[in-house]
Amino acid sequence: MDVFERLRSSAVDEWTAYVDHAFVRQLGAGTLPEAAFRAYLVQDYLFLIQFARAYALAAYKSRTPADIRAAQAGLAAILDETELHIRLCARWGIGEADLAATREHPATVAYTRFVLDQGAAGDLLDLHVALAPCVVGYAVIGHALAPRGVDALADHPYREWIADYAGEPYQAVAARARDHLNDLAARTLTEARFPDLVATFAAASRLEADFWQMGLDAASA
Amino acid sequence: MDVFERLRSSAVDEWTAYVDHAFVRQLGAGTLPEAAFRAYLVQDYLFLIQFARAYALAAYKSRTPADIRAAQAGLAAILDETELHIRLCARWGIGEADLAATREHPATVAYTRFVLDQGAAGDLLDLHVALAPCVVGYAVIGHALAPRGVDALADHPYREWIADYAGEPYQAVAARARDHLNDLAARTLTEARFPDLVATFAAASRLEADFWQMGLDAASA
Amino acid sequence: MDVFERLRSSAVDEWTAYVDHAFVRQLGAGTLPEAAFRAYLVQDYLFLIQFARAYALAAYKSRTPADIRAAQAGLAAILDETELHIRLCARWGIGEADLAATREHPATVAYTRFVLDQGAAGDLLDLHVALAPCVVGYAVIGHALAPRGVDALADHPYREWIADYAGEPYQAVAARARDHLNDLAARTLTEARFPDLVATFAAASRLEADFWQMGLDAASA
Amino acid sequence: MDVFERLRSSAVDEWTAYVDHAFVRQLGAGTLPEAAFRAYLVQDYLFLIQFARAYALAAYKSRTPADIRAAQAGLAAILDETELHIRLCARWGIGEADLAATREHPATVAYTRFVLDQGAAGDLLDLHVALAPCVVGYAVIGHALAPRGVDALADHPYREWIADYAGEPYQAVAARARDHLNDLAARTLTEARFPDLVATFAAASRLEADFWQMGLDAASA
Repeated sequence: MDVFERLRSSAVDEWTAYVDHAFVRQLGAGTLPEAAFRAYLVQDYLFLIQFARAYALAAYKSRTPADIRAAQAGLAAILDETELHIRLCARWGIGEADLAATREHPATVAYTRFVLDQGAAGDLLDLHVALAPCVVGYAVIGHALAPRGVDALADHPYREWIADYAGEPYQAVAARARDHLNDLAARTLTEARFPDLVATFAAASRLEADFWQMGLDAASA
Repeated sequence: MDVFERLRSSAVDEWTAYVDHAFVRQLGAGTLPEAAFRAYLVQDYLFLIQFARAYALAAYKSRTPADIRAAQAGLAAILDETELHIRLCARWGIGEADLAATREHPATVAYTRFVLDQGAAGDLLDLHVALAPCVVGYAVIGHALAPRGVDALADHPYREWIADYAGEPYQAVAARARDHLNDLAARTLTEARFPDLVATFAAASRLEADFWQMGLDAASA
Repeated sequence: MDVFERLRSSAVDEWTAYVDHAFVRQLGAGTLPEAAFRAYLVQDYLFLIQFARAYALAAYKSRTPADIRAAQAGLAAILDETELHIRLCARWGIGEADLAATREHPATVAYTRFVLDQGAAGDLLDLHVALAPCVVGYAVIGHALAPRGVDALADHPYREWIADYAGEPYQAVAARARDHLNDLAARTLTEARFPDLVATFAAASRLEADFWQMGLDAASA
Repeated sequence: MDVFERLRSSAVDEWTAYVDHAFVRQLGAGTLPEAAFRAYLVQDYLFLIQFARAYALAAYKSRTPADIRAAQAGLAAILDETELHIRLCARWGIGEADLAATREHPATVAYTRFVLDQGAAGDLLDLHVALAPCVVGYAVIGHALAPRGVDALADHPYREWIADYAGEPYQAVAARARDHLNDLAARTLTEARFPDLVATFAAASRLEADFWQMGLDAASA
């Protein structure tokens, strides 16, 4: 059993509440209010800025050229994703000025700073376990929302978002992240610290669920 | 005008929403539901653990023996406060086992990790500006809730909490924190970075208001 | 006067002892013992790994997408330079196995960890001032050692090294680093902290001179 | 076998070169030139300031009140030791102004910043392994230099220094540090990371030996 699977099965309630959140189900069904999606998109942009910092932290905490290089690739990928995000926002009528003017929601602050602090206080395994619900979770969600493939999404209103995470490139990113967790665990996982890692994974999953909830709340406000 | 006063007057809406929050008003009036106070007390214990880490971070980031010593005194004071907090909780029927078993609320995660990250990413001024709404704000609130002095609180249900923050020792702690901010500002405050510090101060004040709201929400849940 | 020039002229003895070190003069005259150059090359490889971490730290400490992006570009450039360095070492008969088997010299530890700690304890200006003697200094040295241009180096034994740092691409890197220092100073430099920055710059210049000395010592050992 | 003993026996050459350095032998024999001792004392003061920061870093990286409290006690103890050190320096004719005016020697920079960076990049075990040659080593050296007890030192010129580290209080500090290493190892030591910890321990021991050498060099300069 790989480490991600061990973590997931040890925090299955928190995991399910996150990947099967009402926001996700409505997104998949195409019934998610546009206001919810838009609120999510803007906060996700602010989220990505902090996630880029988390990969920079991983590079700083690395000791070998190979580990630095892997973290740098992650950082570069997120910076590219940020650019794509700006274009996606534009297609939903959200300009760069809107993004810059928006304040981080407490749910955005809570998850991103939690991840950054786990990484600053702990080691690379602590950091990547805190990142995993996001990095791997989006691949799981993307896959689940496109059960008959990306082409079958036709004119689904959230086609583009689903296709991004269901598509091969992102699925490969998530697969590499799982491999990396296994590699880090082979180096530094003791059974004595496993409960702490489960606590980190569960907390990160709950904070991700709060992030979806923030989107729904914005639409009903 | 001292730096704290400049920050406060530049974020007066966020400040007022925090120090004059319904939780605070009900606490002062003695009408706050016990369930709200108890939920707050438990989270405040978890909060203090992270605040101790923030003072440790300040000591780590210091360069002179005097600055290290000042931060160490702050750290020691918070560890003492944590002990007092355990005793206060006990008087409200919350045992150490309860404290240990309680999970950090997202509002606790958001404010504490925000402060820690401001400190890790920035300098000592960034860190202490993020701490100021808490350190100075509690003195302001304590003073406001005991307008005729601590002795006049008689059998106020939250007498002990108000007396702690209204009392001379804590008022002196807050006064020293303001002086320290002025000292740090004399060394490192440029006008170009003032807007960033206001943004930090305003964000921290909002996150503190969310912390009060968490208490109220717990009582109405 | 730009900030780099202010720092340099405030630490002119340390600066001169570094950029005009016997190692540099012998390198320029082509009289440097090969053993000295080889010892330097190997340690410089280990040095670059830590410098990559320093740019990762800069990305982590950044707050805006533009600053993260700039630091990420610096990190990527150093990782590329590390690859070039491996090829340069190979041409001097030093294989990757040799590089991996070599221990960091105390002079390498001292400068690299000093820079990383200045960055972790301080802000981005502290970090970039500690990096400046290296980043800008190598451009100054490269330029000085190729007074009639790179083409005139003909069959100079250290032609390739000198050409790298005298060449337009590296000169542009150094020019951008100076601009970046000016930009950071415009945001965060107070006169009160200038003496601390001079102390950092002077210490870094001394540690760079020690790094040259390590090369000479290796040849005379 | 406790973890300290495992580390020591895996880096026995580096350990012996440190604890049995000529500086130590001459110190024990009472033949160490006063200039060497004085140069050492001044740098050791600067060293302690950075070691205080290392314990602050340990407190910041801790997650439980017990761990924060233990690190805080270490920090407080070092700050006290710094005060004692100022008095010891005074008895050797070195005033506070001299201490403040002295620059960190590269050997001081190398060891202290190495420790701080191991701690920032790694976890608490990495940090405490880097600290161990100092914390435990001084107890081993103190014990070795007072084979017939502290009282037998009579009018040994370095009586006071030897008695400090040979005495019961410091021996207890070192014993607790060994226990703490065992505790951290029980939580987070995998066999896969043991070679990295040996490398850290060996590097720290070499940097400690360089620190003694700096004292001898100062006397022969």
